Parts: sequence; C-alpha cells; structure tokens
Amino acid sequence: MAGNSTGEIFRVTTFGSSHGPALGAVIDGCPAGLELSEKDIQRELDRRRPGTSSITTPRGETDRVEILSGVFEGKTDGSPITGIVRNRDVDSSAYTDLKNRPRPGHGDYTWKARFGHYDYRGGGRGSGRVTVGHVIGGAVAKKLIERWGVRVNAHVIQIGNIRASRVNLKLIGEYAEKNPVRCADPKAARLMEELILEARERGDSVGGVVEVVATGVPPGLGDPVFGKLDADLARILMGIGSVKGVEIGMGFRVAEHRGSEINDEYYLDGETIKTNTNTSGGILGGISSGMPVTARIAVKPTPSISLPQRTVDLETMEETEIEIHGRHDPCICPRVVPVAEASVAMVLADHMIRAGYIHPTDINR
Amino acid sequence: MAGNSTGEIFRVTTFGSSHGPALGAVIDGCPAGLELSEKDIQRELDRRRPGTSSITTPRGETDRVEILSGVFEGKTDGSPITGIVRNRDVDSSAYTDLKNRPRPGHGDYTWKARFGHYDYRGGGRGSGRVTVGHVIGGAVAKKLIERWGVRVNAHVIQIGNIRASRVNLKLIGEYAEKNPVRCADPKAARLMEELILEARERGDSVGGVVEVVATGVPPGLGDPVFGKLDADLARILMGIGSVKGVEIGMGFRVAEHRGSEINDEYYLDGETIKTNTNTSGGILGGISSGMPVTARIAVKPTPSISLPQRTVDLETMEETEIEIHGRHDPCICPRVVPVAEASVAMVLADHMIRAGYIHPTDINR
Amino acid sequence: MAGNSTGEIFRVTTFGSSHGPALGAVIDGCPAGLELSEKDIQRELDRRRPGTSSITTPRGETDRVEILSGVFEGKTDGSPITGIVRNRDVDSSAYTDLKNRPRPGHGDYTWKARFGHYDYRGGGRGSGRVTVGHVIGGAVAKKLIERWGVRVNAHVIQIGNIRASRVNLKLIGEYAEKNPVRCADPKAARLMEELILEARERGDSVGGVVEVVATGVPPGLGDPVFGKLDADLARILMGIGSVKGVEIGMGFRVAEHRGSEINDEYYLDGETIKTNTNTSGGILGGISSGMPVTARIAVKPTPSISLPQRTVDLETMEETEIEIHGRHDPCICPRVVPVAEASVAMVLADHMIRAGYIHPTDINR
Amino acid sequence: MAGNSTGEIFRVTTFGSSHGPALGAVIDGCPAGLELSEKDIQRELDRRRPGTSSITTPRGETDRVEILSGVFEGKTDGSPITGIVRNRDVDSSAYTDLKNRPRPGHGDYTWKARFGHYDYRGGGRGSGRVTVGHVIGGAVAKKLIERWGVRVNAHVIQIGNIRASRVNLKLIGEYAEKNPVRCADPKAARLMEELILEARERGDSVGGVVEVVATGVPPGLGDPVFGKLDADLARILMGIGSVKGVEIGMGFRVAEHRGSEINDEYYLDGETIKTNTNTSGGILGGISSGMPVTARIAVKPTPSISLPQRTVDLETMEETEIEIHGRHDPCICPRVVPVAEASVAMVLADHMIRAGYIHPTDINR
Repeated sequence: MAGNSTGEIFRVTTFGSSHGPALGAVIDGCPAGLELSEKDIQRELDRRRPGTSSITTPRGETDRVEILSGVFEGKTDGSPITGIVRNRDVDSSAYTDLKNRPRPGHGDYTWKARFGHYDYRGGGRGSGRVTVGHVIGGAVAKKLIERWGVRVNAHVIQIGNIRASRVNLKLIGEYAEKNPVRCADPKAARLMEELILEARERGDSVGGVVEVVATGVPPGLGDPVFGKLDADLARILMGIGSVKGVEIGMGFRVAEHRGSEINDEYYLDGETIKTNTNTSGGILGGISSGMPVTARIAVKPTPSISLPQRTVDLETMEETEIEIHGRHDPCICPRVVPVAEASVAMVLADHMIRAGYIHPTDINR
Repeated sequence: MAGNSTGEIFRVTTFGSSHGPALGAVIDGCPAGLELSEKDIQRELDRRRPGTSSITTPRGETDRVEILSGVFEGKTDGSPITGIVRNRDVDSSAYTDLKNRPRPGHGDYTWKARFGHYDYRGGGRGSGRVTVGHVIGGAVAKKLIERWGVRVNAHVIQIGNIRASRVNLKLIGEYAEKNPVRCADPKAARLMEELILEARERGDSVGGVVEVVATGVPPGLGDPVFGKLDADLARILMGIGSVKGVEIGMGFRVAEHRGSEINDEYYLDGETIKTNTNTSGGILGGISSGMPVTARIAVKPTPSISLPQRTVDLETMEETEIEIHGRHDPCICPRVVPVAEASVAMVLADHMIRAGYIHPTDINR
Repeated sequence: MAGNSTGEIFRVTTFGSSHGPALGAVIDGCPAGLELSEKDIQRELDRRRPGTSSITTPRGETDRVEILSGVFEGKTDGSPITGIVRNRDVDSSAYTDLKNRPRPGHGDYTWKARFGHYDYRGGGRGSGRVTVGHVIGGAVAKKLIERWGVRVNAHVIQIGNIRASRVNLKLIGEYAEKNPVRCADPKAARLMEELILEARERGDSVGGVVEVVATGVPPGLGDPVFGKLDADLARILMGIGSVKGVEIGMGFRVAEHRGSEINDEYYLDGETIKTNTNTSGGILGGISSGMPVTARIAVKPTPSISLPQRTVDLETMEETEIEIHGRHDPCICPRVVPVAEASVAMVLADHMIRAGYIHPTDINR
Repeated sequence: MAGNSTGEIFRVTTFGSSHGPALGAVIDGCPAGLELSEKDIQRELDRRRPGTSSITTPRGETDRVEILSGVFEGKTDGSPITGIVRNRDVDSSAYTDLKNRPRPGHGDYTWKARFGHYDYRGGGRGSGRVTVGHVIGGAVAKKLIERWGVRVNAHVIQIGNIRASRVNLKLIGEYAEKNPVRCADPKAARLMEELILEARERGDSVGGVVEVVATGVPPGLGDPVFGKLDADLARILMGIGSVKGVEIGMGFRVAEHRGSEINDEYYLDGETIKTNTNTSGGILGGISSGMPVTARIAVKPTPSISLPQRTVDLETMEETEIEIHGRHDPCICPRVVPVAEASVAMVLADHMIRAGYIHPTDINR
C-alpha cells in the first residue's frame, strides 16, 4: 500500500522511525530545472528541530540533511530527490519500561493491533519524529511553488484557552517566527508560553490550534469529486500526529450561519475576480478561487505526560500503571507549524502540476 | 487523474452530473461472493432522494438504480460492480439566466477557472446530485462491512444554533430516521425543522453539523503515515459538497484540554482491551483502536438562496446581480446523513481489506 | 485494487462481462473542450463488432454505445466520460455443459482459483468481449491525440506461418481495412483468410501476429524508471486476452545483432533530429524519440475449439472431456486490431498529458 | 508521477543515478515480521555488481548496502524499508566529451526531450546502474515469497546466435551461477563467453535472451483486466534498460500453432489440478494457474560501443561523430539475470498480497 506516500504527481514517500538509523523522504515527480540545495531543506528542518527553546523537548538532534539523489549541477534533474537525516541523540533507555505496556493517547496499542508488534522505543514510525520526512518533502514543494508566487505560512492561534488576535495574513510568517510559541500575536504568545511552562511543571501537556494560510494560490486547483483541494488538504493535515480536527475557511462556524450571511459575493478588482469576504477559505466546489487558502487544525495535548496512567500489559494481559519519562514537548503546536506548512505546500505543489500551472517535467517550459 | 475515484483496493469511481443523462458508480475491488441486489442500493438511494419531505427540494427524481455489471447469480463476482441512476426530472430552464454569471458560494466560477467552462445547469458535476455515486458505492460498502459486524450511522446534531442532546450510539440509526431532519433527539428535531422552514420562507438557507458513528470497527485499520484511517475519513468527508470542517473524536475541543484530561486509559473488558473514555474517536496514531469511530462534519448553508446576490458576468466582465430560482434544499444536512454514512462505509471497507480483515478476492476465505 | 483501470491521468476504468446486462468504460482525466459524440466511439466499436465477416463469430451484437456522462454541449466537460454497450444477443445455453468443467486455454480455472467461482457463460469478465471497454476508452483517446497529429494504426502481419510483406507505415490504416483479415498486404490477406476458414472447418483455430504503429508521437513521452512508455505499452498489450508476447521495435531479433548494427544513429532533417534507422521502435531509455512507435504482439489461437479436450470436473474432482460449442472466432487477430489500436492510444493519451504536451484540464490552453 | 515506483501494495520506489551520491530503494507495504538483514540484500547486489568477471565492466563498485529504516530487532516492522548503496568509483572524465552529443542507442536525447537536459555522466538516471534499486527491492520480495515456497531463477538462454539447450527448471538457479555468462547449459556458456570476448575485442557489443522461471507460484494471482499478472510482468520486464521484447510461456511461437496443439489440457496430480503442457507459461486469463511462470526477455547489445558513431550536437545543432570510451559491459545479459529475478519477485510479492495469499500487515497471520 502506498501508505507512506502522498500526492499524485508531486509524490512524496517518507521513511524512518524515532530510534532507527535515519529518516527521510523521496520526492518523485518534481519537475527538472529547479535550483535546490541542502540549505533549502535545512532551513525548514531547523524550524522543526527539537531542543531549540525552553518549551520543546531537550532531545539534541542536529537534523542535518543529506541529499542523496535528484540534484545535478545545482538543479533538480527530473529524477527522484532523496533527502535523509540521521538519528544521532537516540536514547532508548527510557523506553524499556514501556515494552508491552502501551501508552494512553499514543499509537502503541493500535500499531500492535495492526502489525503484531510495536516499536516501544519512542513510538517507532508512530513518533512525531516522522514529520522530518514531511518537512523534507515540503521544503522542495515550497521552493517549487514560491517560484510561482505561492507562500505558505502557519502560526499558532490558540493554546489551551488563550486565543491570539487576528493578524494581517501577509505578516503571519514574519511575526510568528519572533517567539518560541510561533504565535503572530506577541501578547498572546507570552501568555501561551507561560501556560506551556506551567503545564510542563505539572508533568502535564496542553493542546492548541494552528492556522495555515497560503497566499498567491491561482484559481482552478482541485480535482473534483474525490480529489478536491480541500479534501487533499484535510487528508494530509488530519494525518499529522495529534491532529483531531481540520477546518477550511470559516470551518465549524458555518453551522450557525445563513446562506445570505456567508456566501462570498464576487466583485472585480481591476481584471481580477475576487470575493469581498472569504468564508470559503479560498476553495469552492473543492477548487481554489484565487483568494487565500486558509485552514485550521486542532492539535491535542502531547500524550506523553509524566503523571501515572492506567494501561494494560499486553504480555500478561493484566491492568497496570505506567509513568512516561523520556524527553517530550509539553505542547507540540510550535513544532507543528513548519510541519503544517510543509504539508500544505506538498498538496499545493501536487495540485499546481495536476492543474497544469506548473509543467510536469521541466519548470522552464 | 483519478479525481473521481476513492479507495486503494475497494475503489469507487463515480460519474454523472446534475442535468446529464445519468449518474453512477463503478466499484472495483469488492471481493466475490457477497449477496447483492438492486434493493440493497435502492434502500440507501431512497434515503438521499429529493422530494421526500417539506424540508427538501421538490425535484421529483425517482432515482431508480440499475446494476449493469459485477453481480452473477445474486452475488458479487469479483468484477467491477456498476450501478446507474438516470436523471428524469431535469428542468434546466431556471438556469439559463445564470449562464456566465457564477453563483456566490457555488463552484461555478472555480470550475470555469479549472476547465475553461462550467455547466450552468444546476452546477453540472459540481452539483450535490453527484452524491448519488457516493451512495451507490457506500451501499455496497455497507453490505460488505455489515457482514463483519460494522455499522455506520449518521445523524444531524446541530442546525443553526440548535444542538441535539447526546444519544446512545446504538440508537442513533433508529431514532434519526424517525423525523425528516434525521436528528436522533426528537425535541431538537422539531425545533430544527421549524428553523429550516423559517429560513426557506425568507428565501434563505441554514447550516448544521452531522455526526457519523461506526461501531464494531476492528482494531488495526489504517495505513500510517499518509494513509491513516482518520486522514482518509477526513479526505472523503471534507470532499462532500458544502462541508467546511471535519473532527475526529473530541475534535477542536482538544485544544482546551490537558493531556491528563484526555488520554483515554486502557482497561480490560474480559479479554478485550478498551478505553474508558473515547476522546480519540476510536483512532490513535491513525489506526483504529476497536472503540467506536466518531466523526463530525460542518455543513454550510445551501449556497442557493433566492435573495439577490452580487456577482460578475464572465462574458462582459461587469459586476451584476443574480437571483437564483430553481429548486433547492433550504438545509442539506438531512440529506447529507446517508452520504456521510456512505462515505465512511467506503473508507472502512477499503481499510478492512487493506488491513487483511476481509479477504481481497473472496469473502468466503 | 484498481485492476480494471489503466492510466495515471487519462485513466480508463472498464466493466461488464460476456453475458451480463452491459459493458462499458469510464474515462476520467480527459481534458475539457474536446468535441466528442457517440459517433466517434461507434465507429471504433463497429470495427471490433462480431458477425461482420465469414471469419468472425456469428454472435449478432449491434454494440450501440450510449454516452451517459462527461459531454456537455458536444464537448467533453472535464468530468468522467461514461460509455456503455448493452449485451443483446446473449445465448448462455451452449455453456451450461461447461459449468464446473474449465475449458483448456481459457481463464475459467484460474478465475475459480482467484474468486472462488467463475462465470461459465462465455467466460464472464474473462471473455474477449470485455475489450468493448478498451475500444470505448481508446476511441476517446484517439480523438484526443489525433488533435495533436498522432495516428495509431494496427494490422495483421502474420497468421499461422503466413507472413505479410512490409508496407509503408502511412498506408497501413487504409490498406488493412480493405479485407476482413485486416492485413495490409492483399496477397497475404487472401492466403490468411483461406487458412482461417480451413482451421474453422476442422473445428480448430489459428494464431498470428498484430503490429501497431503510432506516427506523429512527440519526443519526450515516458516516465522513467518503472513508468516508461515501452513498459506501459507492454503492460496494456500483454493484458489483451490471448496475447503471449510483446515486442518494441526490432524486438527479439536484437538478440542476434551487434551494437554497431542496431544503434540508430542521429541526423538532422531540417531542424528535427531523427534517426536513419528505427530499430528502437521510437523509444529509447523508455522515452519516445519522435520516430514512429512500433510494437508487435503475438496472439494465440482462440482456445475455444470444437474438438474434444481433456479437463477436470471441479465438483466431482474427476478427469473428464468436453466439447465447446457456442459461437467463436476461429482467429481473433482481425478483431484484435482495433483493440490494440485502442490500447496504444490510451497509453499515448495518458503519457501526452503526463509529459505536459496536452494540458490536463482544458485542451484550449 | 509515480514513475519511479512499482507495485500496488508491495510498492517499491527507487532513486539515484550513475554518478550521484547514492542509489537506493524504499519498499513500502512489506508486511511486518519478516526476518531481514543487510546480508539478504547484499547477496543479490553482489550478483549484479560490476567488475566480477572478464565479461563485465571493470567499474570497481563494492555496492555495499545500508538499511536505513524498516527493520526492528532483525525483522521488518511494517514501516517502509530503505536500502541505499553509495557510488564510490565514479569517474566522469570519460563523459565530458559527450556533453550535448547524445549517444546512439542510449536515452540521452530522449531525456533531453523530456526534462530539458540530460546527465551526460554515464546516463544519470537512465543508466543501467539504476537497477541497483530493482535488486534491493527484489531481495526483500524474494525473501518474502520464498517463505511461501516461491523461487525465482533467471538464466541466459541465448547470446548472439548461440542458444542454450533446455534445462530442468529446478536446476536453472544452481547451474546458471556456475559460469560468468549465467547460462545453465555449460557447453553453450563457453561459446557465449567466447562470443562476448570477441565482440569486446572489436569494440562492439552483443545481445541475447534471458529466461525467468518462477516455481511454486500459487494459482489465483493476477487482477483482471488491466492488472493481470502477465501484464504486470511485461511492464516491469520491458522497463529494464535494453529490453525490447517480452514473452510469456510459448511467446511468439503461438502464432504458428493451432488451438488444438497448444491448449494445455487439465489433469489431476493427486488432488492438484495441473496441465500436461505449459504453453501458457503458468498464466491463463491473466491469472496464475499454479504451473511454473515462465517469461523471456530480449536484451539488445549494449549501446555503448567504442566504434565511431554519427550523432547531432544539440548545442550547435550540427551533425557530428563520437567515440564512447568509459567502462562498459560488452554484453549485459549476465548482469540482467539478477535484475530480471528481482523484477519478477517484486511483481509476485505484490500479487501474492493483492490476492490474499500473504497477509498485508503481518506475515504471522
């Protein structure tokens, strides 16, 4: 099954686990002629790297990417691009205690149900660390679509019950990167940081909401009926570990509105057709309208908490209790930001080729 | 592109438009040996059929299904199953006025951006009528998974600001079918019906939320990392026309909680491992846990309203105003119910084969 | 599984069986704006229709196609195109004798091994009649690629030990249609026809070789490494019932040659790069070179013969003997001609979109 | 496009080029629980490694594989398996002369037509060196299917006009490995070796035919209509560089026979249904019959010859002449043997899962 692949034409296959030798991604279907270096990928990996602030896990990975294939004389050559990152700071000792005793809120038990075993060392392929692959794929996607003026930025808009104020879409990227929470509202960011530290103090964790905005998206992206742009965005975003909800545009708030209130009416801005509101989040009938594409995802609190929890020992089949030590993020929202951007960028790159905006084999045509 | 197909092994391809000769679905990858008749499909189609109550469109379609292939001596034979429904009550007259003048909130303009034209007669392939294909595919999927004890039921839990009380999961199917709103809480159902009729009276429309629950789902379904069960559910549900949000389990409410509050702890129920809460909605690490799978979708108010709306004439490139007449549902939530069930059933059928629960070629092995 | 589908972007899914209600095809991914009518498809279906000459089966099917979807105002609209043909002259009586007694050379026993049963009425989905779906898909593909100057023609070049002389590539289409054998060499055609009639007289059947030639194919088609143009041609051609071998260009004769003899050297014809020989059959490194694409397929003698044959009764598990009556072609090569053309056309249409020669959503861009 | 991937469930994606940093493969969809080590893969890589005899290229690659992911505690863990091989003995100096001057018989010009450039250093991704990826994927496939008793062996049966005598199917593997030509007939092997050396002496190259035989294949493998077993075999075999023809069973010789001569009649061998001949090559109706699966491929003479050849300079657009130096195999047939085995093994592994013979997630179920 192509479970570890995403995209129809711009197709990314990822591999690797939390405590194995390496993680990585193969990007097939990227057209030739795109300037690409390890720096382009490293920049994005550095954004999701652990150990960079007080509110992330202290796991000390450098996450250096190596490109193994697909680049010739500084440009993509039309063949699959492979980037890998070796695991360095692997410490499995904290996990031996968890063998056969699945952690609540994690995929341990369900992986066992599926594959007959699970990698108790940090969750194996079920670990959040697999998003290294997303970021590698997304970095190539970003480079590609930025050439056509598409920008993807994500930011944290809620942690616990603290909500950020709205920010001009164009400033999100700049503002969000100024604080460790990656919230574009600096006041809310400070409160969020405090909340996260307080949760960590208690051996607990906290959830939040991340918003992704793509500007410059051309109209006409999206394959009806099952390959719609919003459907593909929902798939990749819901697939990020810990995500439990996805909204496009106005999201769940549409339920409380009338058609007359939320239909985005058309007007002319010069020769361009726009809508004066954007409740649809830039997607109508599953196809982009040219307005900014906006999505929000609900991120649950990290399931790894140090408080004692009830579980079942799968070997003895007896109920028992565990305490999780290891090294964990008390809130993964800030690190979900680059992953969400990468995910949306991969979908957009794929759909821009699928819709004929980008030539499938050679960017110079 | 396989835009009109869904599923990796149990693969459904749909076709047809609002005002063309017919709509239908081809189901490839259904194992042989399953008893199947037109009745099984008709029952589900009758549930999404228009014109059955005061709160649905008066379009008078009988929606009789004909099976063209894939059934031999009353059973599926392993070859593709094709079901079609002919359009009968086609009235395109109301639409001529809309040629070149895209309706706000609909996919008209975005289809034009994609395909260079759009079918102004009821939205063509962008119409909600295309869910006839979903229901045909879903009816076969339901029949298949029910043999393994999996039941999928949906119900309306919110219309406008009216919310239904929680109902025992096992009673949803029975209760929801007792009223035209398909809300399992009869008190709320009455209020919802009034709200819908009031909106229709004003030439307006109203949105809501539909919940889908699957019980009997075995643990172990879901292909990590991109083919997760929740990812695939999000994709198909977000792809239903008018859906703007998808939640699994607790959904967006996870943002306000701590890990200690929402981690579902394991216990033993005889020899079965269960969790005492189900905030995860039966899916952990993208794989089913054996607990009920629950999803909710936000459905926007029908964009077809009879109030005047601003748009742009694509031929003259001038701003203008339209009024939509035609025949429309003031609220599509009740009719989304069977479509959401069908969608979830297709995903589950596919994943039950992908995970080896159902033999891929012959249900009797 | 997508077993009944072919193509990545221009994707054809076929359905139906020998004695079921109908056969057909859904073509997803055909760009919008292509003029298409039932006539375009009927013309090709008429070429594979049974009962048109002394050397084909007398089964009297009219094979009238009906387009159910995908065409709006005489042009493709970007949505899936569905064409169906109803089975009319279904006579299953000749087959009851064959229930549980698989015919040698047919797929009866292997279908049983796969699906737990087989449709003894003419082979069900294993029948050559399923190529109706190929021809529907191929007719649309032909229409599409002809707009870019690509022509696909097939002809019979060998029946038994009778071989046709070589013919100018551009005349194949015209000459081959002038006789019932579809051999472009009229002298050989007469001998072939006699041989076929003689085989039929004896209750036997005879095999042959069909060649397909595509001219006007642009250079640059083919996705290395597994999605090469020749690989995809080999897949679809080998998948035609009764085909046991596929050659591209010089085929098996390359084994007896030296590199110095068969490397096609480049020269300039005006500004166009050509090769002075074409042993490669227009494909190098799996990618088209701009020279004519040539393929040959080996077609085995129809396995349905009226002579007595040994088999095993699958119910009693005893060896036994059968005689096949029904209505059969003593040689299917002439009717494979339009099917081979359709197959090659589908692959080329798909690759022309994949390579960016044809816009994926709108032929007018 | 998934051009660099093969297989629907057991899905192999390969990457890397002749002169880049590394080559490799990601195997997704291999069930968990299979014992696997680098040794299993190394054994097969050593068989295709260059520089091992007088009749192969002297390029001195050690081709050491490193497994980066997918193996946990010595067994596959259900996540993607990644194996890489680094290029060591890269000598691009011989190629600078060939920049802009495409070599006849190679993919240089066609890659340029597709991607706007080509990697003149040994053909880049068009090089035969990419079959390192095939062999890595095939080694895992072999390990998997051997557990169910399926063996795949290939041998050289023709070089130039020298043909090997037929050998007992079960001895092919053992006999063929005893000489550098990999021909199971020792007498023919000696003549073939002389022929190859003689061709090399002249700066020329020679073609041949390789046969692949799979024994122990269960009946019931193959998805009709487009995903037939023979169709998938033809696709992967034709996709191997330099292959120009594929035959299943009797192949092209069927053209000269009558139905009465080649229909394989059924008989009972104890409780097993067999055929007394196997002209079909173990595949009927595209589905395996339980008899040995046999395929033959025509391999053209290596296009790299040191004799002068005519070509066109793509920069100056003038006709010119080149001489190829570099290091090349005068006949690649012996090294195609392990690649052909790997290719067939990948297809069989995929189809054994697709048909339900091997559990898709866990080999112990």
